Amino acid sequence: MTLSEIKVGLVGLGLMGRSIAVSFLLSGHPLVAIAPIRGEKEEAFDRIRDLLREYLNDNKSTQSLDLYMSALTISEDYSDLAQCSLVLECVVEKMNVKEEVYGKIADVVRKNTVIATNTSAIPIGNLQKFVADPERFIGIHWAEPAYNTRFMEIVCGDQTSIEVVEWVYQLAEQWGKEPILLKKNIRGFVTNRLMYASFREALYLAENGLADKEDIDKCFRYDFGSWMTLMGIFRRLDYEGLKDWAIIFRSILPLLDNSDQVPEIMQRMVESNAKGVQNGIGLYPYTEEEAKIWELKFNQFVKEISSLAEAYPADIVEQKLKNNQ
Amino acid sequence: MTLSEIKVGLVGLGLMGRSIAVSFLLSGHPLVAIAPIRGEKEEAFDRIRDLLREYLNDNKSTQSLDLYMSALTISEDYSDLAQCSLVLECVVEKMNVKEEVYGKIADVVRKNTVIATNTSAIPIGNLQKFVADPERFIGIHWAEPAYNTRFMEIVCGDQTSIEVVEWVYQLAEQWGKEPILLKKNIRGFVTNRLMYASFREALYLAENGLADKEDIDKCFRYDFGSWMTLMGIFRRLDYEGLKDWAIIFRSILPLLDNSDQVPEIMQRMVESNAKGVQNGIGLYPYTEEEAKIWELKFNQFVKEISSLAEAYPADIVEQKLKNNQ
Repeated sequence: MTLSEIKVGLVGLGLMGRSIAVSFLLSGHPLVAIAPIRGEKEEAFDRIRDLLREYLNDNKSTQSLDLYMSALTISEDYSDLAQCSLVLECVVEKMNVKEEVYGKIADVVRKNTVIATNTSAIPIGNLQKFVADPERFIGIHWAEPAYNTRFMEIVCGDQTSIEVVEWVYQLAEQWGKEPILLKKNIRGFVTNRLMYASFREALYLAENGLADKEDIDKCFRYDFGSWMTLMGIFRRLDYEGLKDWAIIFRSILPLLDNSDQVPEIMQRMVESNAKGVQNGIGLYPYTEEEAKIWELKFNQFVKEISSLAEAYPADIVEQKLKNNQ
Repeated sequence: MTLSEIKVGLVGLGLMGRSIAVSFLLSGHPLVAIAPIRGEKEEAFDRIRDLLREYLNDNKSTQSLDLYMSALTISEDYSDLAQCSLVLECVVEKMNVKEEVYGKIADVVRKNTVIATNTSAIPIGNLQKFVADPERFIGIHWAEPAYNTRFMEIVCGDQTSIEVVEWVYQLAEQWGKEPILLKKNIRGFVTNRLMYASFREALYLAENGLADKEDIDKCFRYDFGSWMTLMGIFRRLDYEGLKDWAIIFRSILPLLDNSDQVPEIMQRMVESNAKGVQNGIGLYPYTEEEAKIWELKFNQFVKEISSLAEAYPADIVEQKLKNNQ
């Protein structure tokens, strides 16, 4: 079955939802997108078209924008999802909202339609129990912007069937991702655990005046950043020859922050209604123009880093050996 | 004073030392490099010339390789350091070895010659007490390959004088770095604390069978990697709109590993004399050819990511506003 024969559905058209919509359309799926928030429909349609146009321009594609857009239906009516083989939920991270959405989806789709969530915070097992025929429920966790990043976590719940897992994994590869499969129902996903481990330490250092935010960001950009996209951590340790690591582990680990509380800086942010670049109040301040510059720059950067990542694939050695044959 | 008038010294010509030597030479310093390990001298000379030649070729430089090399003296005699204004120690992370080296340096240089260490593991305060006139002692922490990365941590000990700090900071900027200044004698440096926080979690996940090494590396490469070099952490949180962060912190932090013991996987590595790519025994296995491919690929990658980092500077907004004026 080609992707153009697999109709997919999407519920939720916020920033992430729109970007996932573009990814589905670029992959060739017919797409039904449900805009659950009233009045969101028109804006979402325009924005998806803009993103698609930009992508096609950037990639000097000769494909027609209209052809891609003709595969898209945006609706407020869940019953339009009826013929979908996969429906991805991409709404706010609130259990009760998600529960309601799963009910509405299950009411209209086939019993074997795969229902998936893009959650990055809630354990799949906790959501799975809200879904009729829960063996078809699975986590598909994307990274922004969904049409330009290679990351994808596929997360099973306790009841997810192996057939569903395999089918979604194959789809992910066809979408151009480098999927990661979490067989166990590990809490917190892998990527978030790894990220928040360093976020916690970064916030601790800033909160206690041990380093400035700017300097911490520089560490990430210029030290982590110099190898991260190529290697990941285990490969990096190998590359450095595992030299002196025991000394370093012994001296560093006892210093690290082990708190399980929301860091105070972040607590203060929520009290001041901070939304970062979205309203100019954040860990750094932003004028409206500066916020726009960051959006623009990130969009440019992510394209460049994605091409770079593609030039250095995970199976770099195999590729190289093959080329030499 | 131009850099060509500032003679610098370097003690230790392992991988890192050679790469720092190239950085000093490219910056225009006359350099005296002490090879404390017998028989290391010739190999180090050849390797530094190779690295320099490659750098000049890559950057289509018309500068003469011989001219750069003529600024380099490699010696086994510490007294050749006598005229240096700065001497950087870059030997193995062992207190007693470093103590001996500082004694030999201090015996031959001026009383106001700045003595620095590239340590990434030992607190500067602990090393400072081995140095005669300790106010001139400072940490200058480089990232590999030193001539192609923008990262640099400048770390003060309790006794380091402000004049020394300022002088080294200015030098770092002239070397093309984005220096980070750690005024307090924070243990463990910033970059290592941030890195080892996520290393600890990664090793915990692998050790407990919650995720494969390969998948963890993919998370870093394709999720972290998609924004790290542009943004760092605080900027990233702002960029994501600080949305849902409180939910995520609350759900993730209690799950994280808080051990202060050397992870078992790493313990086993040391027992099997693993040196990663250097002897083929590591977290991943390597044939000799594969090890070479990784070295080659990293050298290529780091050039590409460095140009990318340069195109997106830390003061991206200022730059952009300036261009618009």
